[in-house]
Amino acid sequence: MTTIKDIAAKTNLSISTVSIVLNNRASRIPKSTRDIVIKAAKELNYRPNQLAVGLVTKRTKTLGLIVPDIRNNFFSSLAKGIEDEARNNGWTVLLCNSNDSHERDLEYIKMLAGKGVDGILYSMSSDSNLENFKEKYSLIKRLGIKFLMIDRYLDFPSTFPKINIISLNHFKGGYLAAKHLIDLGHKKIACVTGPQYLSESNNRLKGYKQALDENHIEFNKELIIEGNYHIKSGISAVDKLIEKDFTAIFAFNDMMAYGVLKGLKSYNLDIPDDVSVIGYDDIYLSEILEIPLTTIHQPIESLGRGAAKNFINIIDGKEEDLGNLPLYSPELIIRKTTSKPNKRALNKRT
Amino acid sequence: MTTIKDIAAKTNLSISTVSIVLNNRASRIPKSTRDIVIKAAKELNYRPNQLAVGLVTKRTKTLGLIVPDIRNNFFSSLAKGIEDEARNNGWTVLLCNSNDSHERDLEYIKMLAGKGVDGILYSMSSDSNLENFKEKYSLIKRLGIKFLMIDRYLDFPSTFPKINIISLNHFKGGYLAAKHLIDLGHKKIACVTGPQYLSESNNRLKGYKQALDENHIEFNKELIIEGNYHIKSGISAVDKLIEKDFTAIFAFNDMMAYGVLKGLKSYNLDIPDDVSVIGYDDIYLSEILEIPLTTIHQPIESLGRGAAKNFINIIDGKEEDLGNLPLYSPELIIRKTTSKPNKRALNKRT
Repeated sequence: MTTIKDIAAKTNLSISTVSIVLNNRASRIPKSTRDIVIKAAKELNYRPNQLAVGLVTKRTKTLGLIVPDIRNNFFSSLAKGIEDEARNNGWTVLLCNSNDSHERDLEYIKMLAGKGVDGILYSMSSDSNLENFKEKYSLIKRLGIKFLMIDRYLDFPSTFPKINIISLNHFKGGYLAAKHLIDLGHKKIACVTGPQYLSESNNRLKGYKQALDENHIEFNKELIIEGNYHIKSGISAVDKLIEKDFTAIFAFNDMMAYGVLKGLKSYNLDIPDDVSVIGYDDIYLSEILEIPLTTIHQPIESLGRGAAKNFINIIDGKEEDLGNLPLYSPELIIRKTTSKPNKRALNKRT
Repeated sequence: MTTIKDIAAKTNLSISTVSIVLNNRASRIPKSTRDIVIKAAKELNYRPNQLAVGLVTKRTKTLGLIVPDIRNNFFSSLAKGIEDEARNNGWTVLLCNSNDSHERDLEYIKMLAGKGVDGILYSMSSDSNLENFKEKYSLIKRLGIKFLMIDRYLDFPSTFPKINIISLNHFKGGYLAAKHLIDLGHKKIACVTGPQYLSESNNRLKGYKQALDENHIEFNKELIIEGNYHIKSGISAVDKLIEKDFTAIFAFNDMMAYGVLKGLKSYNLDIPDDVSVIGYDDIYLSEILEIPLTTIHQPIESLGRGAAKNFINIIDGKEEDLGNLPLYSPELIIRKTTSKPNKRALNKRT
């Protein structure tokens, strides 16, 4: 491997001159000298040894990113935002895919520590709960690694140590979805939620309840079905709801909304004439479906970029370690799966 | 940072004993001693310094992966397969997303070299051509990094140096798609291809031609429309085809097939009664569409796993550098968008 020494020998310049030029601190070095160094560096295939740099600065400018499932568009868009922003700042990202498994979360945390990452951006597996999270948390603390949780987290008890979290505003999203349906005239709005211990699902539900409250509609827990964010649980939620009295369904992600659409069709119900459906996420296919899906758009790439930026600032000491990171606001996208509840539908459903 | 020396001092054991235990070469060390070392390592928050290890072994056990667009399900599934297999072998993956830009390909190659990766798995940007590829190739050679191209490559002239390529069998996929339509009775089969300079698109077209040849159907280049793998080019391909004489459309990826379905509907054509449509890729949404899409399934995760495995073997010197890597075979998935051309359709289209 070519070293700075080799370039100094070849150019008859001092090692410190070569070093200054190659580290871009060349203000006082004449351009002609700089050109000589750069030419020699190219000819000798010089490349700076980041490993050696890392040992000296104790900084690798590398972030670890653990996501539950990179094939899910939510997380691939998130990864893209993170990676774009990291790259703009000269950082790179080590991507890990936990397959929604707590055990792999643990493995990856250890592996990333071994690679000397400066911090871990972490979206936890869906089988996480307070008990197994404590195991992960104490491992991270033991390894002395900075971390930032992205969007997926738990409702931590107030006794729990403060944790850096960056997230979308799920309360607002839940509120917007329910408000849209209420504004159309719906009062009997079913929900297909995410796993009940995940905070984002709970916050969406809280937003939904808030919209009901403001409009003096009573909350009916019979209409709340727990799903798992996969299509199939949208289909089976319809089976559980079908005998009940509802005119609209709010699915807590688009994938389950697709399942809900399939399920409703299997009962020969028309969308939106018989039942209005709203999803959550606005993944790209929601727009090209046969009946384009009304949904809540989440600014996922912005969240990813913001997460990378804030986290790099935290690592660089430019930002408080336990600051309140901003919530990213979702917005309502009205397409074709929601409408006023018509009389036929109301009769059919009661 | 805790070193092996610190652990030796704390436990009153020799440095070599501690080193043997921590490197898992503990066969001859009694379990009681091992336990003492491990307990001390935990208490002192010892973690092996992979950076230092990398400097000594000149091996970082890290692969770079450059993909054109991680939000595309093809590449996120590929990344998942690569990452799973790498992890099984104790390697990690640095993920880079080129946004389909040649310039970013170049930047990433340099950045990954700087990070000391042992090799680059590379799926090139769609704006690559032979001229700008030469620029990338000479950069990689100058940096002395091993690389393996995955699935996306060019039709290199025979004078070009041999390159490691691992790929799906696109010729076979194109053949299977055309053969399926011919078997149903179609003779006028339009194609919406990928960019004409990408080898996988050309190979699919060659497979299509082969099926036509075998069945004595004349090739009609009027029915071949060049697309760019995005939904919109599927829609506009229908606009270009609509006045022509065809009974089926073979779209070279599922995204364009969705566009073709949308486009055909805008002309009030029924699928599959008026026109049969077949896609390529079998991304997960193709199954849940209103009319589930007949398509060619590509074993993308298997390709990813195979790529990681073969490449690690190449880096470790266990496999020939320029061996013929296996082609991964696609298979036909028959769903609901293809059927016999019925008389009504034939009349309508002529």
